[in-house]
Amino acid sequence: MCYNVRMKKKLAIDAMGGDFAPKSVVEGCLLARAEFPDTEFILFGDETKIRPLLSDETNITIVHTTEKIDSGEADPVKAIRRKKTASMVLAATAVKNGEADALVSAGNTGALLASGIFTVGRIKQVDRPGLLSTLPTLDGKGFDMLDLGANAENTAHHLYNFAILGSFYASNVRGVTSPRIGLLNNGSEASKGAPLQKETYDLLAADESLNFIGNVEARDLMSGVADVVVVDGFTGNAVLKSIEGTASSLMKLLKTSIKDGGIASKLGALLMKKSLYSLKDALDYEKAGGAVLFGLKAPVIKSHGSSNADAIFATLKQTHKMLETDVVGKLVQHYQEDK
Amino acid sequence: MCYNVRMKKKLAIDAMGGDFAPKSVVEGCLLARAEFPDTEFILFGDETKIRPLLSDETNITIVHTTEKIDSGEADPVKAIRRKKTASMVLAATAVKNGEADALVSAGNTGALLASGIFTVGRIKQVDRPGLLSTLPTLDGKGFDMLDLGANAENTAHHLYNFAILGSFYASNVRGVTSPRIGLLNNGSEASKGAPLQKETYDLLAADESLNFIGNVEARDLMSGVADVVVVDGFTGNAVLKSIEGTASSLMKLLKTSIKDGGIASKLGALLMKKSLYSLKDALDYEKAGGAVLFGLKAPVIKSHGSSNADAIFATLKQTHKMLETDVVGKLVQHYQEDK
Repeated sequence: MCYNVRMKKKLAIDAMGGDFAPKSVVEGCLLARAEFPDTEFILFGDETKIRPLLSDETNITIVHTTEKIDSGEADPVKAIRRKKTASMVLAATAVKNGEADALVSAGNTGALLASGIFTVGRIKQVDRPGLLSTLPTLDGKGFDMLDLGANAENTAHHLYNFAILGSFYASNVRGVTSPRIGLLNNGSEASKGAPLQKETYDLLAADESLNFIGNVEARDLMSGVADVVVVDGFTGNAVLKSIEGTASSLMKLLKTSIKDGGIASKLGALLMKKSLYSLKDALDYEKAGGAVLFGLKAPVIKSHGSSNADAIFATLKQTHKMLETDVVGKLVQHYQEDK
Repeated sequence: MCYNVRMKKKLAIDAMGGDFAPKSVVEGCLLARAEFPDTEFILFGDETKIRPLLSDETNITIVHTTEKIDSGEADPVKAIRRKKTASMVLAATAVKNGEADALVSAGNTGALLASGIFTVGRIKQVDRPGLLSTLPTLDGKGFDMLDLGANAENTAHHLYNFAILGSFYASNVRGVTSPRIGLLNNGSEASKGAPLQKETYDLLAADESLNFIGNVEARDLMSGVADVVVVDGFTGNAVLKSIEGTASSLMKLLKTSIKDGGIASKLGALLMKKSLYSLKDALDYEKAGGAVLFGLKAPVIKSHGSSNADAIFATLKQTHKMLETDVVGKLVQHYQEDK
């Protein structure tokens, strides 16, 4: 009799991906292990580099391999085909074979997207998975945006599916009740945009199961105008990078102007330390975890390349939440019922 | 004998456009009149409201009309057709008829774009004029980006023309030698993007008269990665609004955190005043003037709706520079020679 026996969650982790791998990846796992005793962390990578970082291997398994995907691979798709024993490839294969429930990497984004789509595989009804991140808003609640660049081109039907994906993510993983879905457009009126946006607008408006609030503009994203923002991959990628670039440029500018502002400015900055930190904190995307390639048969999550142990920990928490809420299973069920 | 007799420059100005019209428009004109004695300012609007703002009408002409285009017109194109004596419409017609050399308005953007295209008219070889602004960079030099949303959809040939337009603007109006032209894309490699970007890349690379430096990413715009950034109108609009939205959100956040940070933070902010102002200053787009609908037979410039007298003055300086350098004439000549 097996009442209340819970399967252990198993995370396939590319221990060799990211600028500070394997150190920050392993340290992030140790933080996550302390919080989630129900989880096994399967680390794919060079055991001679990983093992010295572990004093205790409880709930940790190492799958040894010395091959890895480099962050600068010219053709990431070819790289995952060629390097059959790369840590990322083996981790993806473990998810495909049911030996792990989710895939996490801070490595090459293109290679991870390809591993997700070709190895882990799409949910049958989702033609185009979307790359989703939770981005910061002024009120601290954040919003989810997709696609952030998994696709170079999208149809209205892809965008309609992004709305469903985003809605499932926001309600399950972030606990948002009836997430407000906005379509990114060049004006708020219903008639705005190119044919792609107009057609998407009609599809979203026609589906009563979605809380579609209409068009939203990029200017209002950080004000929390919507809980989920739907956009084609090309524009979404440009918007994400514009937000990141502007925020980091302003922080740089502020630093320089404090430095050049003399003793008064430096003393002022010292007194304002708390305020400046809370500004930096508010911009820290990585607190919310990594970018999810959503619409696959299992969670596949990209942590930032420059992730430190805390950022890896945040990504693992997010992965754990996706498994705990079974958001992918619910999505699969939704599409089956929808047939 | 008429040596050295210069024609006076004539600016057709929609005195009733913008949130603070006609006051800020008239005050901006007075600032410009003091700097440019070679220029006549033709103010279109309600003389009973304009005249009290003028103590001296040297170089100022008022063309009286009480009709105007509202900022909230649901259908701006219909509005300019219906309101035949609106200040913006009369100003555009004056440019069309050769009674003025350039059109300036802080009013309804859609109506101004339509007035530019339908009344002032396109340069024959420019299928799609682009909306161009000079945006700030960290080094203070700025960059020009187009199209910022005059078009909802663009072809590669449109984008190729935007590169020519932007290059002429940057070299003539901003004095940039051999402007570096970048194509906004989702990665820097030549193979990146959707078919639109790939096709544009090839057109730009094939034209040796352009200083094309390849693809640029939105993340690097404020770092001054290029002097001219070419992008389709939909993405350009989203990028512009993302930059604006992020910058204004961060300034808001900084203000709140200073307010909530207690006495130390407030004292700190006071000491940092100079640094904070230089931050605000660096973000002030309007110092560089308004947005030009470029590719028309005459300069048509949109000043921000919330323009104060200084912002109007900046736009008039920019307009004056466009006339002084004859950038439109040079562009027309380029296309004629190119045939």
